[in-house]
Amino acid sequence: MHNILPWLLNLLVLTLVLCNEEDNTIEKCNLSNSIKQEIASYQNIANQIIAAINGKFKNSTYNHLDEFISEFGNRISGSKNLENAIDYMIIKSEMYNLENVHGEDVVVPHWVRGEESATLLHPRVKNLPMLGLGSSVGTPPEGILAKAVVVSSFEELKKISSKVKGKIVVYNQKYTSYGESVIYRRDGASMAAKYGAVATLIESITPFSLATPHTGWQAYADNITKIPTACITREDANMLHGMYKRGKTIYIKLKMEAHFLPPAISRNVVAEIKGTTHPDKVVVISGHIDSWDVGEGAMDDGGGAFISWTALAILKAMGFRAKRTIRTILWTGEEEGYIGAFAYAKEHSNETKNLNFVMESDIGTFTPLGLKYSGLPIVGCIIQEILNLLRELNTTKVLTPADGGPDLTPWLNQGVPGASLDNANERYFWYHHSAADTMDVEEPEPLDKGTALWAAVAYIIADLSFDIPKNLTVL
Amino acid sequence: MHNILPWLLNLLVLTLVLCNEEDNTIEKCNLSNSIKQEIASYQNIANQIIAAINGKFKNSTYNHLDEFISEFGNRISGSKNLENAIDYMIIKSEMYNLENVHGEDVVVPHWVRGEESATLLHPRVKNLPMLGLGSSVGTPPEGILAKAVVVSSFEELKKISSKVKGKIVVYNQKYTSYGESVIYRRDGASMAAKYGAVATLIESITPFSLATPHTGWQAYADNITKIPTACITREDANMLHGMYKRGKTIYIKLKMEAHFLPPAISRNVVAEIKGTTHPDKVVVISGHIDSWDVGEGAMDDGGGAFISWTALAILKAMGFRAKRTIRTILWTGEEEGYIGAFAYAKEHSNETKNLNFVMESDIGTFTPLGLKYSGLPIVGCIIQEILNLLRELNTTKVLTPADGGPDLTPWLNQGVPGASLDNANERYFWYHHSAADTMDVEEPEPLDKGTALWAAVAYIIADLSFDIPKNLTVL
Repeated sequence: MHNILPWLLNLLVLTLVLCNEEDNTIEKCNLSNSIKQEIASYQNIANQIIAAINGKFKNSTYNHLDEFISEFGNRISGSKNLENAIDYMIIKSEMYNLENVHGEDVVVPHWVRGEESATLLHPRVKNLPMLGLGSSVGTPPEGILAKAVVVSSFEELKKISSKVKGKIVVYNQKYTSYGESVIYRRDGASMAAKYGAVATLIESITPFSLATPHTGWQAYADNITKIPTACITREDANMLHGMYKRGKTIYIKLKMEAHFLPPAISRNVVAEIKGTTHPDKVVVISGHIDSWDVGEGAMDDGGGAFISWTALAILKAMGFRAKRTIRTILWTGEEEGYIGAFAYAKEHSNETKNLNFVMESDIGTFTPLGLKYSGLPIVGCIIQEILNLLRELNTTKVLTPADGGPDLTPWLNQGVPGASLDNANERYFWYHHSAADTMDVEEPEPLDKGTALWAAVAYIIADLSFDIPKNLTVL
Repeated sequence: MHNILPWLLNLLVLTLVLCNEEDNTIEKCNLSNSIKQEIASYQNIANQIIAAINGKFKNSTYNHLDEFISEFGNRISGSKNLENAIDYMIIKSEMYNLENVHGEDVVVPHWVRGEESATLLHPRVKNLPMLGLGSSVGTPPEGILAKAVVVSSFEELKKISSKVKGKIVVYNQKYTSYGESVIYRRDGASMAAKYGAVATLIESITPFSLATPHTGWQAYADNITKIPTACITREDANMLHGMYKRGKTIYIKLKMEAHFLPPAISRNVVAEIKGTTHPDKVVVISGHIDSWDVGEGAMDDGGGAFISWTALAILKAMGFRAKRTIRTILWTGEEEGYIGAFAYAKEHSNETKNLNFVMESDIGTFTPLGLKYSGLPIVGCIIQEILNLLRELNTTKVLTPADGGPDLTPWLNQGVPGASLDNANERYFWYHHSAADTMDVEEPEPLDKGTALWAAVAYIIADLSFDIPKNLTVL
């Protein structure tokens, strides 16, 4: 850290940075002219990258991703399929002459869904499409047949807690935002088990449904009985609530084979373009290669992984080599709690000081709008100057914080500056963790633009005469 | 017919009607002042009906429908559940003091889906969510395991016809409009069987999918081998096409228990408010009570059936009795080809001359916009005058023809004027014939407005001093 401190202090004196915290956008920056001029000198580089994705490399991110998804489909941690997909990416990286290509072993959980079903038996018979939640226990082989109670909140559950024993608790919480509503998926089982529930069925966490169940990770609380837990559709949660309010007796039969196998060894995939003058200093572009075991994992996070991989491949093919190293990392075990990223951070903790900037795209690769950064306000100012070079892509928006790059957590927590891809992802949670996460969600042009943004920003940051300042108060 | 002829000729002389056929909207009408004044005199009636759905009867269509759907769910022709639902509506109609309440027997097909599945076995294993198509034969109990070919059109199928024998044909036609694309669902099996295909899997007929399969009726051609046929998701059709274009060998296992049971007796449900001076003359408001065997049949056609039923119930409760009879009909067997409507038309053919105006809502009960009519241009002018009384509802749009009332076909074909509900149904085919056709699609306010429009138009037409002119060139 001590290396950059004098420079940082100098920069802080020279610049005045004002950010409007109200709407999280940059209000006013006062970067020095020399910094502005240095960044402006990369306009030609930015133009070449944009020309490349409009020319020779047009559609290449989509095509790489499409071939990969067609070959492997979804890739859950612990599965042989994920490891095959990782082998494929390592071989592909070597074929494209990327540097220092290797996998780094990570122990990941190996949760297996197995067969599963939920059936409404009374007041009428109806199949309830469902997806067991990651880390859920299964039911006994014969299933669980129980009366159900339906609540719309934890508060309501508490009010009827004396009626919960021996029942299946159905949550019909209203979707407000992913962040707010996902607590029902995460904590719903243990909150109900506390009162003696035998299973939970939770309304899928999505703002829109075509009778679509969504999965995701859940977390059992300590010292509470682990009960089977799954998400059902919005429609069925609403229907069951209607029946319950009418005073109908609801019987549901739940069968889940969900269980853990012993932890497995997976790998983070690493590929680089070595830096010229500071090969030890690193800019990371990344996405995660694992996915849930439903749909195809094309959006979450095939798109993020492949703009990260293709950006490096295009820079390499164009012969661009920056002062610092540009490293693509495809994380494993993201869906089970950023397992690959935290393992990498731990394994490489002595190199954290050399991480200049970390980027991840894991909130969609729809039409890119700009970047969401975490770090000192001045980081936003520098990013704004860089993105201004990409006016042609219409990707000049700067927001904070970087909330679409969960694998960046260990480094952002240590003050390393980083960013996620801001994109027109209004429908992201329509598809997220469901059978609808397929190649139909992805489109060539937004992926090209995402790749160009990723490549240009990574290259320019990796090549600047100065490091991106870290947040020393956190470090 | 002879009764109205002089009046009609008089009207034709007195009025000049010009319709802009380009955009199917009324361009210019020149109704006589006396007709305009007579229609304008119903403003107070219209206002009372609007006040009622904003007051005492607010949400009542939604609540009636919600209770019905909660109780019965989907209701396929031939099922006991449909007959239970019909009994329920007959009893409910009597409870609400509707008149001449009865069911009229209709023989309907009894197609049963049974268990069904499609599994991609090579180049990788993936479950292919699917829905067998109505009237499809099943597979042998062990299923059909065959190589697949994928085409995007009948033209392409013809080009590779020599490769089709013994194969499963997958159609990946692009959705353009329902009318254009549905020919693949209707004719796809026989078109492929002609070249020796053993089964067909057809991209679901929808402009948007969340991995959603859609069902619907299909029609085997005469003298062509009947092969099992089903719809798969847009996403999987695209995926399989991608694999096929890459030269992958595709193996699919298809299992379908689909079969016909002997035809069953179902019923059209009839309820009326008898006319005062012309009880034999009739205005019909209608929707169909049967549905597909997936989802809940809340949109197709629960909404249409319940605005028709509730409009009559509200008119009755308000003590409104027109000169002519207003008859609500809930058709059965619509999904298998308007079976109930054609049976009714045949059974009551001698009463066709007394049908003054026929209405059906079967293309959604989203926010109503107005009416789509079929008939002489002057009919559009009369409807426009009537809808102008409903300005408060914002439902004054008049279009032609009446393309959302398929059960009206036998009468419209004979020149009887009629109309369907024009509504903001841009998403209709997202839900249509799928598991997503649930109460989540329906909303109280649009249903209230649809009911008010239905009640006001039916009452005013039934009460006017003149009959709505028929198209004598068709008659």
